[in-house]
Amino acid sequence: MSAPPDVAAILFDTFGSVVDWRGSLIDELTAWGQGRGIAADWARLVDAWRAGYAPAMDRVRRGELPWTRQDDLHRATLVRLVGEFGIAGLSEADLDHINRGWHRLRPWPDSVAGLTRLRRRYIIGPLSNGNVALLVNMAKSAGLPWDMVFATELFRHYKPDPETYLGACDLLGLPPARVMMAAAHNGDLHAARACGLRTGFFPRPTEYGPGQVCDCAAEEAWDVVATDMSDLAGRLGC
Amino acid sequence: MSAPPDVAAILFDTFGSVVDWRGSLIDELTAWGQGRGIAADWARLVDAWRAGYAPAMDRVRRGELPWTRQDDLHRATLVRLVGEFGIAGLSEADLDHINRGWHRLRPWPDSVAGLTRLRRRYIIGPLSNGNVALLVNMAKSAGLPWDMVFATELFRHYKPDPETYLGACDLLGLPPARVMMAAAHNGDLHAARACGLRTGFFPRPTEYGPGQVCDCAAEEAWDVVATDMSDLAGRLGC
Repeated sequence: MSAPPDVAAILFDTFGSVVDWRGSLIDELTAWGQGRGIAADWARLVDAWRAGYAPAMDRVRRGELPWTRQDDLHRATLVRLVGEFGIAGLSEADLDHINRGWHRLRPWPDSVAGLTRLRRRYIIGPLSNGNVALLVNMAKSAGLPWDMVFATELFRHYKPDPETYLGACDLLGLPPARVMMAAAHNGDLHAARACGLRTGFFPRPTEYGPGQVCDCAAEEAWDVVATDMSDLAGRLGC
Repeated sequence: MSAPPDVAAILFDTFGSVVDWRGSLIDELTAWGQGRGIAADWARLVDAWRAGYAPAMDRVRRGELPWTRQDDLHRATLVRLVGEFGIAGLSEADLDHINRGWHRLRPWPDSVAGLTRLRRRYIIGPLSNGNVALLVNMAKSAGLPWDMVFATELFRHYKPDPETYLGACDLLGLPPARVMMAAAHNGDLHAARACGLRTGFFPRPTEYGPGQVCDCAAEEAWDVVATDMSDLAGRLGC
């Protein structure tokens, strides 16, 4: 194994890489629906909700929408889907509660232990398209030991816009070569590398459920390729 | 004692309120000067450095300087003072090292324990005129358990500009009435209250050394007035 790169800070993709959005939301909505007597194909709704994620941000990135924070993009997609799925009887408070499920996502089993190890040696923070409130509430409920929360909201750009990667490096006072982007998504790392950041990959092969076909393995020679967050910590000397 | 206000997040002034800038810098510079054989009146230099703090930010606030982060304001003041004090033989690396003393300030004895208690119930973060890198490095070295680092750099305004207090509330997704500004400085709380935030005061009667005459007591009826950070935690139900 080669020596770990000379990085001082590690930025983490969050949805899918640190937390299990799909399993968390399906479990929470299934239990909530049972308690309320509302039947729906919650798994299909969650998958459709996530499928609306990139297109909503792309509308902001193309300038078709003014800057809109992720909580509001999530909610607009949810309202559309509730209509399409014919789920009746939800109040505004119900929709707010469901939408804030993104603030309560649970970490993958290795995330907290791996981050805790990495934090001893590196500055760690999310670099996520979730907004600050979402990420701070998530860290509180999931126990994620971030040093700083780099929501892309701080830059009013969504990943993979370069302003996000370079904005975080600038706030850290570090050149991109001393900052690593860590993610389970090849596309995120591709964009980070184009900005000069170092890159760390670990797969989350069930992020999209059984039968996942994308991002099951590293698609470029990233600086570090690990099997999970614990392995990433070990490969980075923690 | 009345019930604590219904706040979800507490923002802390940092220099002087959470960390002892004067004692830290004097001790560090005295030891560093002895090791390097450089004699100077370090206490007087530190006091002059701090005296240059508000005027430097005011130049930014008035628009006489473009946005300039605190590390760079600190360094420009340091360079001027080193000349005025006639301290010879400092390299650029020495000046960088001295300037980064602000990243290594030590907490007051009650700060970490008090913040740790408060964090169980509230979102906590600095709202400081230090820049992100300074505050993140300080938290790392001092063990400050922030949930989020609200450097005023994020808003490109320095306190007491209202953009800083309202910007932090906006990122938290909370109305100002559910956010408390906590500080040892009446002026900071006055500006926060004018923006609708709740206010918490605790004195740091030796922040400016022996003979301190300002900010020794609450000057308005703040929502909470405590004797120190531990007492603040107790009065806020932690």
